[in-house]
Amino acid sequence: MMKIALLTFCTLACTLPAHAAELTLAEINARLEKVEAELKLSQNKLTQAENKIAVAEKRASDAELKNKNSKSDIINDDTEIKFGGYARTGILSGKQGTTTTVGPSLTPAGSTGGSVGRLGNEADTYVTADFDYKRHYANDSSFRYYMKIAEWDKTYNTDSAFNGQMNLRQAFVEMSDLPTFTGAFSGSTLWAGKREDRDNFDIHWLDSDMMNMIGTGAGIYDVNFFGDVKTNLSVYGRNFNDIDAMENVEYNNMTGADNTFIQNYTFSLNNRVGGWQWMLNGLYSKENDKRINDGLAQDNAASHGFNTMLAWHGDSFYGLNEGSTKTVLLYGKGLGAEVRGPGSDGYLIDDAWTVKFATYGMTRLSERLSIAPLLVAQSSNSRYIESDHYDWVTLNSRLIQEINQNFALQYEASYQYMDIDPKGFNGNKPVSGSYYKLTFAPTFKMQNVTDFFERPEIRFFVTWMNWDKNLDNYSSTDTFGNAGYHSGGSLMFGTQLETWF
Amino acid sequence: MMKIALLTFCTLACTLPAHAAELTLAEINARLEKVEAELKLSQNKLTQAENKIAVAEKRASDAELKNKNSKSDIINDDTEIKFGGYARTGILSGKQGTTTTVGPSLTPAGSTGGSVGRLGNEADTYVTADFDYKRHYANDSSFRYYMKIAEWDKTYNTDSAFNGQMNLRQAFVEMSDLPTFTGAFSGSTLWAGKREDRDNFDIHWLDSDMMNMIGTGAGIYDVNFFGDVKTNLSVYGRNFNDIDAMENVEYNNMTGADNTFIQNYTFSLNNRVGGWQWMLNGLYSKENDKRINDGLAQDNAASHGFNTMLAWHGDSFYGLNEGSTKTVLLYGKGLGAEVRGPGSDGYLIDDAWTVKFATYGMTRLSERLSIAPLLVAQSSNSRYIESDHYDWVTLNSRLIQEINQNFALQYEASYQYMDIDPKGFNGNKPVSGSYYKLTFAPTFKMQNVTDFFERPEIRFFVTWMNWDKNLDNYSSTDTFGNAGYHSGGSLMFGTQLETWF
Amino acid sequence: MMKIALLTFCTLACTLPAHAAELTLAEINARLEKVEAELKLSQNKLTQAENKIAVAEKRASDAELKNKNSKSDIINDDTEIKFGGYARTGILSGKQGTTTTVGPSLTPAGSTGGSVGRLGNEADTYVTADFDYKRHYANDSSFRYYMKIAEWDKTYNTDSAFNGQMNLRQAFVEMSDLPTFTGAFSGSTLWAGKREDRDNFDIHWLDSDMMNMIGTGAGIYDVNFFGDVKTNLSVYGRNFNDIDAMENVEYNNMTGADNTFIQNYTFSLNNRVGGWQWMLNGLYSKENDKRINDGLAQDNAASHGFNTMLAWHGDSFYGLNEGSTKTVLLYGKGLGAEVRGPGSDGYLIDDAWTVKFATYGMTRLSERLSIAPLLVAQSSNSRYIESDHYDWVTLNSRLIQEINQNFALQYEASYQYMDIDPKGFNGNKPVSGSYYKLTFAPTFKMQNVTDFFERPEIRFFVTWMNWDKNLDNYSSTDTFGNAGYHSGGSLMFGTQLETWF
Repeated sequence: MMKIALLTFCTLACTLPAHAAELTLAEINARLEKVEAELKLSQNKLTQAENKIAVAEKRASDAELKNKNSKSDIINDDTEIKFGGYARTGILSGKQGTTTTVGPSLTPAGSTGGSVGRLGNEADTYVTADFDYKRHYANDSSFRYYMKIAEWDKTYNTDSAFNGQMNLRQAFVEMSDLPTFTGAFSGSTLWAGKREDRDNFDIHWLDSDMMNMIGTGAGIYDVNFFGDVKTNLSVYGRNFNDIDAMENVEYNNMTGADNTFIQNYTFSLNNRVGGWQWMLNGLYSKENDKRINDGLAQDNAASHGFNTMLAWHGDSFYGLNEGSTKTVLLYGKGLGAEVRGPGSDGYLIDDAWTVKFATYGMTRLSERLSIAPLLVAQSSNSRYIESDHYDWVTLNSRLIQEINQNFALQYEASYQYMDIDPKGFNGNKPVSGSYYKLTFAPTFKMQNVTDFFERPEIRFFVTWMNWDKNLDNYSSTDTFGNAGYHSGGSLMFGTQLETWF
Repeated sequence: MMKIALLTFCTLACTLPAHAAELTLAEINARLEKVEAELKLSQNKLTQAENKIAVAEKRASDAELKNKNSKSDIINDDTEIKFGGYARTGILSGKQGTTTTVGPSLTPAGSTGGSVGRLGNEADTYVTADFDYKRHYANDSSFRYYMKIAEWDKTYNTDSAFNGQMNLRQAFVEMSDLPTFTGAFSGSTLWAGKREDRDNFDIHWLDSDMMNMIGTGAGIYDVNFFGDVKTNLSVYGRNFNDIDAMENVEYNNMTGADNTFIQNYTFSLNNRVGGWQWMLNGLYSKENDKRINDGLAQDNAASHGFNTMLAWHGDSFYGLNEGSTKTVLLYGKGLGAEVRGPGSDGYLIDDAWTVKFATYGMTRLSERLSIAPLLVAQSSNSRYIESDHYDWVTLNSRLIQEINQNFALQYEASYQYMDIDPKGFNGNKPVSGSYYKLTFAPTFKMQNVTDFFERPEIRFFVTWMNWDKNLDNYSSTDTFGNAGYHSGGSLMFGTQLETWF
Repeated sequence: MMKIALLTFCTLACTLPAHAAELTLAEINARLEKVEAELKLSQNKLTQAENKIAVAEKRASDAELKNKNSKSDIINDDTEIKFGGYARTGILSGKQGTTTTVGPSLTPAGSTGGSVGRLGNEADTYVTADFDYKRHYANDSSFRYYMKIAEWDKTYNTDSAFNGQMNLRQAFVEMSDLPTFTGAFSGSTLWAGKREDRDNFDIHWLDSDMMNMIGTGAGIYDVNFFGDVKTNLSVYGRNFNDIDAMENVEYNNMTGADNTFIQNYTFSLNNRVGGWQWMLNGLYSKENDKRINDGLAQDNAASHGFNTMLAWHGDSFYGLNEGSTKTVLLYGKGLGAEVRGPGSDGYLIDDAWTVKFATYGMTRLSERLSIAPLLVAQSSNSRYIESDHYDWVTLNSRLIQEINQNFALQYEASYQYMDIDPKGFNGNKPVSGSYYKLTFAPTFKMQNVTDFFERPEIRFFVTWMNWDKNLDNYSSTDTFGNAGYHSGGSLMFGTQLETWF
């Protein structure tokens, strides 16, 4: 009886906690399972979310990359459009008058390429706008279409009813990486159209071309026949002025039509290896020898010729300092005797020959001082009339001194000696003598004021120039000897904008 | 006493585990509640995150869509700008000389629309650039502004001081889906400006227009008066050359001012249903009948006229093969007797009438061979002088043979017979005879070489052409009979770029 | 013994649940710890996810902002390109003939700025396209390059071989917020180039300039010398026609070269505070006094002069109603006596003086009715020849009545009285009298039809105009008195597009 009581009691006493524990366990189980299930679900969702975020981030950075890519691009999946431009415009005046014929080619040597420093010497407006369209194809080839329009104007007016004519300068196509172009031609670029050659270059300070091959034609760039040599092959067509009826009546009666401009064809071979460039151009202009140059003699223009260029493109300042240099040696014969631009001069005669040497560079003298000196010399003989000569040498140096991050002082000194005997061509007289120019140009820039090629520049300038008296006699229609510009010292001042992008 | 001891013991013995369980429960409770709460929080955050991701993905794909949309677009929420262009330029020469007057219209029939095949026959440069601006308004209407500039130049030079003048070709506005335009006018497009009509078309191989309605005016497209017929109503103004003072002194004294070009107005009705198009144009040019055409007789130009066109635009090659065809029948009277371009010829006289038939198509002969044949025939009578006639028929066929994915051989054969009696107009002589042209043109393309309209194309070509001797007598100023181009066979070679986008 | 049994039992009875509870605890512990750990992990991941989403959203909205920013922009991180344009073109005819010389300046007062209402009075095509390039630099300065081309054409043809010449109108650079520009110059903008001044304004209804300072030059905007006054300083160069050889042989022999256009320089001071603007311009053109005006007397042109403008730019309609008004008072002397455009007239003489008053505004008369009235009066004396005079007053009002959201009726009434005695300059005769014009123009728009400056507009119009008979005698080459346009009432109708963006 007590056993039972005890048992009873103990059941009562002992099962109470035990019974409570069992209830809790079920409840805990349920709640834990629920938590664990939901947690797993959340973790899966989270993983998906993270994947989606990764994808989204990729897409975002792709999109941003397209935006960044260049300062004026529209880029889509397979296409890119870039807009570019150049503008040079300003005002220039002086006590000597208002002629708008000053400029880097104002000396008697100018017409044969003898430019002087351009800083504080330009009053013209030259503006170009270009459209650069690139498309990438599924077969991994690339297409490029480039179009450029320009206007050149010698007046200040905002409508060009005065002078200046908008015109098309370039319109060409390039086909690159065509899958069927293999071997020596793999990586080459086939082109055709109206263009300035890709490998042209000039001396900016003189606005003078070292090599300016332009026209309408076709060719191929970067063929790799042997070693590291990249070769360009091309043909460029140009037109000379029509042969004057006064000079050759019979020929003109024969041709009749008004616009039978004489055609010139330049066949060009251009090789580059390392910093070296060697170019050979053959010229042919069938009927051009019907052209008769005036003068004391009666000389016929040439119908063919050639010219060649050896150039060194250096990536230091003559090995003396960081910077860059270019050194060029050119020779041309007959129709090729205008070495700066094959096919640019239809009056050259068979015996014409020209040799030209140029070297120029840029470097930094100190944190706040940069310099760009140059030397160009040319001798051109029997050019338009038997035994005439057009010889000249030009020295020029531009200096930039930083005042602050937006303002610099630019200085340019220019000297040219010329010895010219045209033998009466165009009624011009033989002259020899020197030209001097000094320019001081306080200049505003957005940044990098000592960088010679940083633009835009807004320049205010004062220029003093002078030349030997007898240079005034060369021509009655050029600048020298004009109302505005007589030997004895000429002071000009003005302001100019130059920009490109 | 034992009861107590037992109780005590049992309490001691039994409550130990029970007591431990109770502690754990509280702790478990707390920790579970914490976990559950934090889980719920995480789940909410996760849901928000997922929603945000969904939104972000939508925005991303919208943005990407805008980028993809077209090869040269800027697209914003309500605005789209598209840039387009066309360029044709190249060099062409031959032993016969340098005249730049060759082209598809070089035969005596050319001036009245009798073009021959253009492949290997063009030496000119024609470049256009266009700007296409679209804006969508809140009221769901759409605005379009289209502007196009062009330059045509017959020389190779990169500056157009020679010849060629940049000019504006089109500048017009289209207003579409104006909410207040309902009924027959719903979905119609109101336009005004200087333009080439939307529904013009030409034969590309001849560079010859079948219908070229252009000028300055206004109109409405796609009015739906009945059934499936879409109707265009428009008026186009054009100007003829001023009436020559020599011809009519009195009238010119009367008008005085220099640029009172004679105005012509063309009122046009154009209907399209399925592949059919029927067009009716009425022309009116008030003072044009004061114009006196020279010639053996003294005939006055017309001051009014009309022309009509029935055209079939087929989506197969004459039902024989996949491809396309167009077949056109045109008739014009009086001032409307130049059927290819209403208002393009101010010298037409009242009795002038012209009938023209043309059919052409394109199809694929095999995987690697496509062909595009055509026939055009026209008879124009009492055109400028009573009872003159200008009759001609042209046959032409272009063939493309694929060599590989970037290179194809193009062939073009062209034949034209003409019978022309100008009755002394412009001092031209009556002639009749045939013209033949064969061109072989190795051509480079980016892709789809056998597609007639795939561009760019860089073509190298050699063309042989010949014509009957008496065609040389037609005019003293046209190409035939010129220094460069006498009957007897003319060989030309060159290279040309053509592209558009 | 019972004790043991009891103990045994109790152990048996009581430890059973207790033992079970201990197992569960370990298990619970483990599972809880796992859940808590994973939850913490998930929470961290979630936080990262949320951060990434926030970043992604920022990038997305940045990207969208760039897209939205303007209707025709390409915006990249540091660069923005905007395209803009204007087009006005249409056809105009009437029973009186086809002269294309009508326009807002058709009266004898027109050449001195006396325009009449332009609505329903224009037959020309004027189209411009502009390119606006902005770049932001790391040093927080901003660069802007703006280029604008234009073509003006008086014919309907789509090629401008007829007349019209594309040309460059503007090309200038602005440098803003240069970090080194501080004090009075902080926030100022330095500019140079060929441009129309930023602060020019005109009366659109007359197509007549109140101040149109244009040319090539340089200057600075928004200098803050004192108080709230913003000051602009600038110099603008322009060119006058060359001095005619007939007038001054000696001078021309002296200058020789063809394009020595006479230069004019305008030095300008322009101040703005609140709605007020005060401008003072000094002009200098050294050799212009060598120019001899024809006429009864022999008068020399001026070589210097000045003009000044006081203008009020109001932001209500004369304080009577919402809208806007401008009121201008101008005075000019000598070379500055063409007050609307400094340097635009090289024939003004030293004694020339001009006073001009203009006031105009726009306001809303009701929900569906807007009005824009104006008055302009000018007296110009001893302008080209001693004691000549060119006096006129113009009243004009344009009204727009809304029909629905795309269609409105426009009305324009114009009156001008002129009293002109040219003293024989250019062979013109003294005249005085009135001109009247009424135009009714149903007009289509995309939206906001009663907004005077909402474009595009496609207008159809009918215009009636008449003038006093003796105005026909003013000139033999202007519109009045011509074949097309004799006093007695002239009815013209046509259609015109105008748009800009």
